[in-house]
Amino acid sequence: MKKTALIMAGGKGERFWPRSRVNLPKQFLSLTDDGKTMIQLTVERISPLVDIKDVYIATNENYRELVKQQLPNLPEKNILCEPIGRNTAPCIGLGAVHVAKKDEDAIMIVLPSDHLIKSNDIFKETFANACDIAEQGPNLVTVGITPNYPETGYGYIKYTKDNKLGESYAVEKFVEKPDLQTAKEYLEDGTYLWNSGMFVWKTSTILDCFKEFMSSTYEGLLKIKDSIGTEEYQKVLETEFPNLESQSVDYGIMEKASNIYTLAGNFGWDDVGSWLAVGRIKENDSQGNVVNGNVVTVNTKDCVIEGSDKLIATVGLRDIIVVDTKDATLISTKENAGEIKKVLASLRESGKTQYL
Amino acid sequence: MKKTALIMAGGKGERFWPRSRVNLPKQFLSLTDDGKTMIQLTVERISPLVDIKDVYIATNENYRELVKQQLPNLPEKNILCEPIGRNTAPCIGLGAVHVAKKDEDAIMIVLPSDHLIKSNDIFKETFANACDIAEQGPNLVTVGITPNYPETGYGYIKYTKDNKLGESYAVEKFVEKPDLQTAKEYLEDGTYLWNSGMFVWKTSTILDCFKEFMSSTYEGLLKIKDSIGTEEYQKVLETEFPNLESQSVDYGIMEKASNIYTLAGNFGWDDVGSWLAVGRIKENDSQGNVVNGNVVTVNTKDCVIEGSDKLIATVGLRDIIVVDTKDATLISTKENAGEIKKVLASLRESGKTQYL
Repeated sequence: MKKTALIMAGGKGERFWPRSRVNLPKQFLSLTDDGKTMIQLTVERISPLVDIKDVYIATNENYRELVKQQLPNLPEKNILCEPIGRNTAPCIGLGAVHVAKKDEDAIMIVLPSDHLIKSNDIFKETFANACDIAEQGPNLVTVGITPNYPETGYGYIKYTKDNKLGESYAVEKFVEKPDLQTAKEYLEDGTYLWNSGMFVWKTSTILDCFKEFMSSTYEGLLKIKDSIGTEEYQKVLETEFPNLESQSVDYGIMEKASNIYTLAGNFGWDDVGSWLAVGRIKENDSQGNVVNGNVVTVNTKDCVIEGSDKLIATVGLRDIIVVDTKDATLISTKENAGEIKKVLASLRESGKTQYL
Repeated sequence: MKKTALIMAGGKGERFWPRSRVNLPKQFLSLTDDGKTMIQLTVERISPLVDIKDVYIATNENYRELVKQQLPNLPEKNILCEPIGRNTAPCIGLGAVHVAKKDEDAIMIVLPSDHLIKSNDIFKETFANACDIAEQGPNLVTVGITPNYPETGYGYIKYTKDNKLGESYAVEKFVEKPDLQTAKEYLEDGTYLWNSGMFVWKTSTILDCFKEFMSSTYEGLLKIKDSIGTEEYQKVLETEFPNLESQSVDYGIMEKASNIYTLAGNFGWDDVGSWLAVGRIKENDSQGNVVNGNVVTVNTKDCVIEGSDKLIATVGLRDIIVVDTKDATLISTKENAGEIKKVLASLRESGKTQYL
């Protein structure tokens, strides 16, 4: 059965400011030592399973040129630009009708564009298994992540060991972000995975789910589908898409559907949620620092210093993040990295929008 | 009696890197909100007592142009360039022979060029009194600073209340930088002042002291004196000056001479020894920060942030110093500000001398 991939790349990624900007979000940045951007790594990672001509990128017009630049081998018609962000359900629906227009029964692998994976081999094996499960019937397959600490920032997938299908287990339920105590219980229990937003299904299966659980959205999607390949497409898209229900696929479909299976993805996943992640991902020096660029450190430990051409000299710092760019420098404690969005709010308020 | 001033401005001031550089040391920087440089403030402060044509600046050839630019009204011949730094005694000797060449009996006020004073009125009054004492005989007058905490980084002047001359007291001895316990005892005792390196004497008095306590230096100084105003001056200076004994005036003369008097300078003195001082001197905002330039602060307290055109955004910082310049940015804890010199050492070692 033909395999396709939908890579979701419409996110803003404010948490990587000042490296990320409104016109250059996280998925288009290189945060690893290999110099490849997040979206390039994502496409490369799925390439053993999916031909580049069957890879679709869901994004918006602002990022069309970035996608073209960073993925020159991708057919331009595979860049699907949403007229407006409507959360993941309409995004996936748009991808599904594009795939279905060519092949109703193709397998569809849905991936975020801005996560990192340590082992591409295990990733490939896991998704090959997920495709097998998806092919075997009207199954929705989600690849979860085995938790290794009680994270309270992710949703969890509860599965049951009693119901196994191939390498997967039946999902009992999806649960929202827990408090710390509950997260600890999930970790202890051993049948909870982090919901990483990675899915595999037959195109016909997910469209049937839209029909059943999000019927008005389904109607809109069908109109868009009919227009694909015609001169009317852009007009229909701009008319219909903004009216689709703004909803996550988790809430709109996964929490309501049956026949959901999950596989544990043990391939070294990181959602690279903030600059803190760079301290985990990149190689640390003997002082626990991650240092790049023109930097001199004195008595500096456990810091992330992303310099550029300009000299950055640090003295006595502990657990600090420094990110230097051409026009802006961020200096934040690791502990308060979540407050970077307040900088952006302040810049908006004071009219310094050139830095956003 | 005519009053003259010798302002010592040959220092390197590495502690204000990256704002200060080898070609722009601290005395030529503005560290206050009024935009005036340290040396400009020093000249302005002494102007009620000394005419600008009687002000001498001791510096070296590297800084001659800076002195000319910053003090355009100063006669150029009053810029005394030492061929090599030989500590304060030869520097003061050079100033003394220049003054003596014009007037053997002029009063000579010796001042550092890189200290700050809060009250210019009290400063003027104190030095007017010091001049009176100096005029009354072969007296060496030093203006000390009443200590308000047990500083271990300065030398102290011990005076005796039993022997008063005008507004001054006889100095019993000069003492080296004490340990903390000793500094506390000095503070408690009440007859110790910080040695700030500010002196007043008749030119003939200090030259007599050179003759008595630093005789070979005195011989060299006389040769230089003879050449002043002749075509031979530069050649004689370059021959004689490097052979003068490299010695501080404190050790070479003050610790050996008698007839030393001191006045307590209670005019709000600060030697502006490091970026920490800027947090004391400049106005703090409601969060205890001193912020200049294009800066956005979020949850930032008790920091000194000297920005420039480039945006600096800080998040979660406490007691941090940030100094941004065109080609280099310093980020240091206040606690470790003394280690900034290690940055300079590292730059020297790695050949990045363009940043020094």
